[in-house]
Order: sequence, then C-alpha cells, then structure tokens
Amino acid sequence: MNTNTTHLTDEQRIDWLRLIRSDNVGPRTFRSLINHFGSAREALARLPELARRGGAARQMRICGEDDARAEIDAGRAIGVSPVAPGEHGYPPRLALTDDAPPLLGLRGAPEPPMRPMIAIVGSRNASGAGLKFAARLSRDLGDAGFAIVSGLARGIDQAAHRAALDGGTIAMLAGGHDRVYPPEHEDLLEAMLESGAAMSEMPLGHVPRARDFPRRNRLISGASLGVVVIEAAHRSGSLITARIAAEQGREVFAVPGSPLDPRAAGTNDLIKQGATLVTEAADVINAVAPILERPVEVPGREPEHAPPDREPDAGDRARILNLLGPSPIGLDDLIRISGTSPAVVRTVLLELELAGRLERHGGGLVSLL
Amino acid sequence: MNTNTTHLTDEQRIDWLRLIRSDNVGPRTFRSLINHFGSAREALARLPELARRGGAARQMRICGEDDARAEIDAGRAIGVSPVAPGEHGYPPRLALTDDAPPLLGLRGAPEPPMRPMIAIVGSRNASGAGLKFAARLSRDLGDAGFAIVSGLARGIDQAAHRAALDGGTIAMLAGGHDRVYPPEHEDLLEAMLESGAAMSEMPLGHVPRARDFPRRNRLISGASLGVVVIEAAHRSGSLITARIAAEQGREVFAVPGSPLDPRAAGTNDLIKQGATLVTEAADVINAVAPILERPVEVPGREPEHAPPDREPDAGDRARILNLLGPSPIGLDDLIRISGTSPAVVRTVLLELELAGRLERHGGGLVSLL
Repeated sequence: MNTNTTHLTDEQRIDWLRLIRSDNVGPRTFRSLINHFGSAREALARLPELARRGGAARQMRICGEDDARAEIDAGRAIGVSPVAPGEHGYPPRLALTDDAPPLLGLRGAPEPPMRPMIAIVGSRNASGAGLKFAARLSRDLGDAGFAIVSGLARGIDQAAHRAALDGGTIAMLAGGHDRVYPPEHEDLLEAMLESGAAMSEMPLGHVPRARDFPRRNRLISGASLGVVVIEAAHRSGSLITARIAAEQGREVFAVPGSPLDPRAAGTNDLIKQGATLVTEAADVINAVAPILERPVEVPGREPEHAPPDREPDAGDRARILNLLGPSPIGLDDLIRISGTSPAVVRTVLLELELAGRLERHGGGLVSLL
Repeated sequence: MNTNTTHLTDEQRIDWLRLIRSDNVGPRTFRSLINHFGSAREALARLPELARRGGAARQMRICGEDDARAEIDAGRAIGVSPVAPGEHGYPPRLALTDDAPPLLGLRGAPEPPMRPMIAIVGSRNASGAGLKFAARLSRDLGDAGFAIVSGLARGIDQAAHRAALDGGTIAMLAGGHDRVYPPEHEDLLEAMLESGAAMSEMPLGHVPRARDFPRRNRLISGASLGVVVIEAAHRSGSLITARIAAEQGREVFAVPGSPLDPRAAGTNDLIKQGATLVTEAADVINAVAPILERPVEVPGREPEHAPPDREPDAGDRARILNLLGPSPIGLDDLIRISGTSPAVVRTVLLELELAGRLERHGGGLVSLL
C-alpha cells in the first residue's frame, strides 16, 4: 500500500465522518464496523437495527449527511482538511494504533506529519532549566530531521513547539480547531501553521474537557517514534502520555533531575521503570535509529467485505452477555468460553457497543458498562 | 571458616607486616608469595634470592623485624590495630577482593566494619542540594542497618559521614592514620571514632599523594555491597570509584540531576551505562537485599603449603620473559604458550615482580615494566 495517496472518495469521506460522529461509535467501534460491514455506508444503514438488538434504551442518534457536509465545509473555511489513515498528512505511525481516529482534522502543512516524529511533553509549571532544556532538545532534534509533536500546553510543550518552529512542529489539540487551549497560545499556533501543523479529531466548536486531554495524549504518543518527558511531578498528565506511549510500543525517554526537585519525581520514576535517560538529542536519536529503518506500511481502509457466517440469535446474545461484567475480558476468552464463532461474538459485541452498554479497552479487552 | 576469630599469631602478624612493607611487594604479590611458600616467614627468607634471579638491579630492601614491631607499637599508641582478612574488624567483603590489603590498620570500633556497608561518594565541590541529599540518604541507610563508608573528603563524603555518625560510619584513608586529609576533617574523624572507624593500609607518617586516592578508592568500593555516587562531573574521582566498584562486582548506584548541571554529568552517564538510579534509600536497599542473603565466607590465610614441583631453570625464565611485554597478558596464556607448568610460571613471575620488573593488573593479567 502506498502511504501517500488519497484513499477515500468524497462520498466515502462524508460516510466516514457520519459514522464516527454517531452515538456510541468510537475509533475502535468504527474499525469493527468497517471490518464487519465492509464500508461506512453499509454500517450506517445497519446501525439502528444493531443498537436495538443490543438493547438500546432509546433510538440512537446517527449523524446526518447534511451535518457531516456542513462540518467539512466549515473546517475547510478555516483551512482544516479531514484526512484518513493512509492519506497524505495523516501521521503513518498513528494510523497503526488500534484506536487511531478514522478522520483527523489537519490544519497547516501536510508534510511535517509524514516525517518521523518525536514527542516532547512535560510540566506546565516547568522550571527555567526545564524550559531551557526543552528548547535545546527540540531544536537539536528538529535539526536532525525530526518533526516535534506536543500538546500546545503552557510550559514544556510551548518551549518545545517554539524552538522547532522553523523545522515544522505539530500540535495535537484536545478540542476543535476553533477552540484552541490555552487561548493565549493562539499566536504560537498561527506561527506554527506556516511550516508546521495542528491536528484534532474533534469537531469544530468542541470545547476541550478534562477527559479530552488524556484522549488527545494518545495522538501525541501514537504519532511519534518516542516520547520525551521533561519535568513531570508524580501523577501528572505527562506520565499518562508516557504510559500510553509504552502501551503503544513507543520509546519512552525521560530527562533526569535532582531527587529533591518534585518536578523531576515523575521523570526519575520513569527511568527507574526502564525509560531511556536523556541528557542530549543523541540519546534520543541513537535509540530510535533502529526503528527508523523499518518501513511503516499503513493498510488501506474499506477492506474487502467478508460477510459473517450467520447472524447471532437470542441464545448467542444471552450466552455472551452472561460472560460479560464490569471486569474487562478478552475477545479470545469470550469466543473460547462461549463456544461461539468469532464472527458471531464480534457482532454481539458491536450490538452492545452501539447500544451504549459495552466499553472497549486496549489489548482487545471489553467490559459491560 | 569462622569470620570472627583471630587467625594470625603475634609472630605471624610481624612477618606479614614485614612482607607487605618490603620493596616490590603489593597485595597481589603478597598473596602469590603466601600461596607459593605457605607462610610470610618462608617468603621473607626467600625474597633476596627470588629478586636476584628475577634480575633485580640492586639488593631489595626487606622490612626488618624491629621496624615492623615499631610500626605496630606506634600504631597501638594512637589506637590503631593491624587486622588481617578474616579477622574481626576486617571488612569481610573487602577480604574477598583480589588485591585486599594483607593488613589494614583499624582505628575505632571493630564492629561497624563487620556490618553490611554501603559507600556514599561524590563531588568535593557539591551543591547544597547534593549535600542535603547525601545526608538524607546516609541517615536513612544508617537507620536501615547499613554502615556508611566513604573517603572523609570535603563535600559529599563529609556530609555522608556526618549524617551517619550515630550508627557508626567508616572512613577509608589514603594516607597514614596520623596524616588525615584534609586536615580540617580531623574533628569529624575524632567524632566518627566513637561508634565508627577509620582504616588505612598505609604506615603511620605516610602523607597521601595523588596516586594514593584511586588506590584507596578500591577499599571503599571493595568493602561495600554497593557504591552510591552523588554528584560527579565528567572524569571525576568518584567515577573512578564507580568503575572499580563495577570491576569488583559491586552494585553501582547514581543520583540523577539536571542535564544542565555539570555536577550531574557523571552520575547521569553512570545511569546511562546501567547504574541503578537512586532517589531514596529504598532504591539501594531493594537492590542489595538479594546479595545480603548470600553468606560471605572469608578463607583463612597461611594455607597448607604445596611446594612447587620443581624450581624454574634458565630456559624457563628466558621462555617466559620472551612472552612478556608492556601489554598485559593473562597467566593462563603464559602457561599455555610457554608450555611450562603453572607452578614454574608463577615462580618466574614472582621473581620478576620482586625484582621490580613486573606489574600485576586485575583479572590475573601481568605486564613487563
């Protein structure tokens, strides 16, 4: 598959946006639906029935074609293009994560997201030394050809973006493109757009809430070869990014600090847990060099349709529902214990998901809500 | 073997001191001589002949019985007891190193050197944070039952000793017991002697020279389960101690710091090379816990005498000398390539050593001087 060509037709793009904007459809459910029904269009047609079978309490809201078209047009008016995995401008490594956004709003230059990326994140309340080091590392990694990705936050994020302006730096946003957070960084973002980019999976107008930040952090780490954490206290957001990065198989780097400095507590802990200690750009470059040599192949979407062997019946649903609870359980276990075919189990899970009764976790685990 | 009983008679102790104080006899040569001749007395009797056969340019100086007795008496007058490996007061782990001093002058309490030891070393020119952390770590490790060993230097050493005064802390000296360096730490040393100890392999009156400090550092690391380096610039003495510690199979610990702080450059490098990152005492305690469970068995000295099969002849000497050069070569290689018996090779090496023509390195390597 070529990673640099457009895969979606205009019609498909509208369908994809409608599907991901419909109730109870997250990136993982989206992928299940596409794999199950072969196209977003077919999935959209089947959503109400699936949700009803899953026991939805009320009619599920499906995003209409006009709404989707309006969102795309409004985005285009301020320079936002919706790109899908495998398309030019969609970070190739992010496309390989299991909860990659089906569409990502791209504003700015499409080239930087295609380059090898390193994430630099850290404390909003950073020390002068932390800010200085972030700027130095960002500039050195930029000079070495990496695109720097971060979260546009105060402190470390800002210092990293600013030092990488010339080379093209990328901000992953937690809210819509017209709801920049924090607002005082709108100027920085404008400066970034000249040779860099901003990306968001959220619709225009979406004001970022607390839970959107960890969700956004998976884009920062997922798009990157590795995440460098510079200054992080215990239990800080940057450590969440580091944990997600490790789960995504990304390199985790941390900058050490004095044991007496609470802003280094998190980074020192990361090193104790196996993160690579960073004092200069070479530490990062040497660690990611072997990964850089491996090609990144993003599969095309809208796969050939393999219809399920049969539809689930009431007995299947009861059996599978009975095995589910608040503790996450793996798909493989569900198939094995229920003695039901994989396709049928997947369909039942989709039904429950669309009815808002199932939560998907990483590693193929699901639990009842 | 019991590690807590006296092994040497008074006569043997005099002989041991005479042997180690004679020209060209270092700890490794001492051990070779004792193993070869079965006793220091027998070795002393054979020294002149051995040195002559090895091609000594002039008569070698052998320490006389009166000189040895005078050194022991003068030491006793200021509270110094010469202890041998395996005797009470001689650090058991140090006794197992391959260049352990045959006699170590012990001043102060003999119990602390018998306890599990942790070395804390670091920059003389330490920061306030470094000194504070050294004191905290030293106190916490002391409270956990470890004896803290260091080098009585300014900066980190001093802070570590001072914080561990109550529990009994040990100073390894580079000079004689009456030549404390730096002189302004004489008061600290006096305070340490109440429940701790000072140890030196040097005779009274020996003023420490630059080369005595790395030599002394092997005592600090060798006596310990592990060495904690707190603040060390690139190419500093503490890094030498860390290197020796690693060669001796000791744990190496390092305290991280900001990449912008030159005093953390050495410790951050150590962590990159695999040292355990330390931010609290638990990091040290957890790492050494498995080692603590293994018993330390110090073999008794003056082994049964196994006389060599035959004395070397001129042909043996020529053959072995021919294989030696300025590059270190292993004993096993010498035996194999020369086709000569191990006992004969060892005797020839001893002869060369006593003639001042051979240097012994770690790992059984030797080179011609």
